[in-house]
Amino acid sequence: MIHRSSFLFPAPVYIAGGAAVVGPKEGEGPLKEYFDKIYPSIQSAEESWEKTEIAMQRDAVNLLLKKTRSEDRRVDLLLGGDLINQLTITNFAAGERDIPFLGLYNACATMAEGILLGASLINAGYIGSSVVVVSSHNATSERQFRYPTELGIQRPSWSQWTVTAAGALLLSSALSKIRVRGCTVGRVVDYGVKDANDMGAAMAPAAADTILRHLSFRGQSSDDYDLILSGDLGSRGLDLLKTLLRKEEILADERFQDSGRWMYFPKQDVFSGGSGAGCSASVWSSYLLNCFREKKYRRVLLIGTGALLSTISVGQGNTIPSIAHAVELERV
Amino acid sequence: MIHRSSFLFPAPVYIAGGAAVVGPKEGEGPLKEYFDKIYPSIQSAEESWEKTEIAMQRDAVNLLLKKTRSEDRRVDLLLGGDLINQLTITNFAAGERDIPFLGLYNACATMAEGILLGASLINAGYIGSSVVVVSSHNATSERQFRYPTELGIQRPSWSQWTVTAAGALLLSSALSKIRVRGCTVGRVVDYGVKDANDMGAAMAPAAADTILRHLSFRGQSSDDYDLILSGDLGSRGLDLLKTLLRKEEILADERFQDSGRWMYFPKQDVFSGGSGAGCSASVWSSYLLNCFREKKYRRVLLIGTGALLSTISVGQGNTIPSIAHAVELERV
Repeated sequence: MIHRSSFLFPAPVYIAGGAAVVGPKEGEGPLKEYFDKIYPSIQSAEESWEKTEIAMQRDAVNLLLKKTRSEDRRVDLLLGGDLINQLTITNFAAGERDIPFLGLYNACATMAEGILLGASLINAGYIGSSVVVVSSHNATSERQFRYPTELGIQRPSWSQWTVTAAGALLLSSALSKIRVRGCTVGRVVDYGVKDANDMGAAMAPAAADTILRHLSFRGQSSDDYDLILSGDLGSRGLDLLKTLLRKEEILADERFQDSGRWMYFPKQDVFSGGSGAGCSASVWSSYLLNCFREKKYRRVLLIGTGALLSTISVGQGNTIPSIAHAVELERV
Repeated sequence: MIHRSSFLFPAPVYIAGGAAVVGPKEGEGPLKEYFDKIYPSIQSAEESWEKTEIAMQRDAVNLLLKKTRSEDRRVDLLLGGDLINQLTITNFAAGERDIPFLGLYNACATMAEGILLGASLINAGYIGSSVVVVSSHNATSERQFRYPTELGIQRPSWSQWTVTAAGALLLSSALSKIRVRGCTVGRVVDYGVKDANDMGAAMAPAAADTILRHLSFRGQSSDDYDLILSGDLGSRGLDLLKTLLRKEEILADERFQDSGRWMYFPKQDVFSGGSGAGCSASVWSSYLLNCFREKKYRRVLLIGTGALLSTISVGQGNTIPSIAHAVELERV
């Protein structure tokens, strides 16, 4: 296998901290104690859902800077994205800050994309620190990608629930407890799935491709990791990922977990689990960091998963191309 | 001034080549002889405008790889973006290739964003080569951002014409004639412009901010460059940029030019000039490279300019935040 766009970081780069702001449904889930702020409503003190999502990004970065004792002018670069057309949310949130900004879009793999780019630029010595902020909002996304939530359209049992959340991470060259060790940039993979409610199935082949490439690049097997955590494959997508990996003779056991399955209790009626760019962003910048602090894991492989669909592509009868990026974390 | 996210590349990185594919109107403009392919129609042998734009990206990268005697498996990274919701065009074009992919969105500053990220990753030694591909299409964009073109809505005299084009560049560590010397990542700047037809005015302050930051970082004045070329400010935006720079005592003379003004003849009725992510992408990857080859310029500062609007933000009565990134090129 030729290894392209798999990077191992020779100079250390760390996750200095994280902050997550979530909506009411996420605040009733199993991870509620780890979130920094829970909004009481999906439209909280703002005049639109979009402005609520902008407020969540603002709050997440403000809380992150407070927790890490930093401020705008000490951050070299802001990397971010969201699911709304033309990154409306991130553009306006970035416009409130005095930090150079690069907008990213790889759907729900955007947080992984941001970590790998920020870590690369820090390792290369171009910047000393970077904030990565990514969000999604159930009502802004459902209206845009599927149906306005007010219509009350019945959802199929294999669908996922778009998470209302913003997650922010501070990457830094300054010594900290969690090191970003390396990454693998994903390729677009398309198995021909056309059902916009079946994103787990669309994304699983991309996740498998990236995991195989990263393990091959590193000369590792899956049991070199304590946890291989996908972004938002959901139950259905995670099962498909394991099936695909077992065909490649990878041990796909209980160390494979999914952030979207962690987000909600089964009784919360989210079917296959959480999804959305804010899902991995908020789980990784809250609960996952806490697991590292509590020494639950030593080495973790994050797999950001993104379904690259749009209403235009779905409306014109196209398939759902997908992508996944790998980020390797290690407790120092 | 604190210099954040301004990078000088110590190891050399080069633009190994470029290719540009344009629509019929662009093919009747002053730069027609420099384009690699001119489509006879804005919907050329494809079933939709979107699929035509995807075909343009495909053609641009295929022509680029042919001209530079390269192929998919020898390119380490594909960086790209477009203006259509969720990067539909780029996602599907990237899905046809076997190259690891990162999706970018900074509106019409996306080509500059791609060059600065690709060059950074090459300089740091993570990758050896990267293709950057960016496009826009008049009919896909106008329908999405303003009105479907079939409506024949009258355009104000200060409006610009969204370019139908895809441009692709190959960045490489292998010795070539044009070196990427450094870059400056822009900040989001918002002067409160709300007219979606007046993007030059919205973007000019962001361009001024980035130019001032880059010159300060480099300890240079504007006359250290033979050309300072903005992406798509148009006549109106370029005039405003010069006014803003003169207030800062920068010599803003005829060396300040705009890619959007270069694209069309005045008789082509495009008013303030060309715009769209494909504007800078196609002009830079064709005519500009030729100017370097003919030794017309030695040192050029590219200013990619992006208006970060969406139909949602405009419809909800918001302003148009803007961004600009600087890329410094030098003839070897």
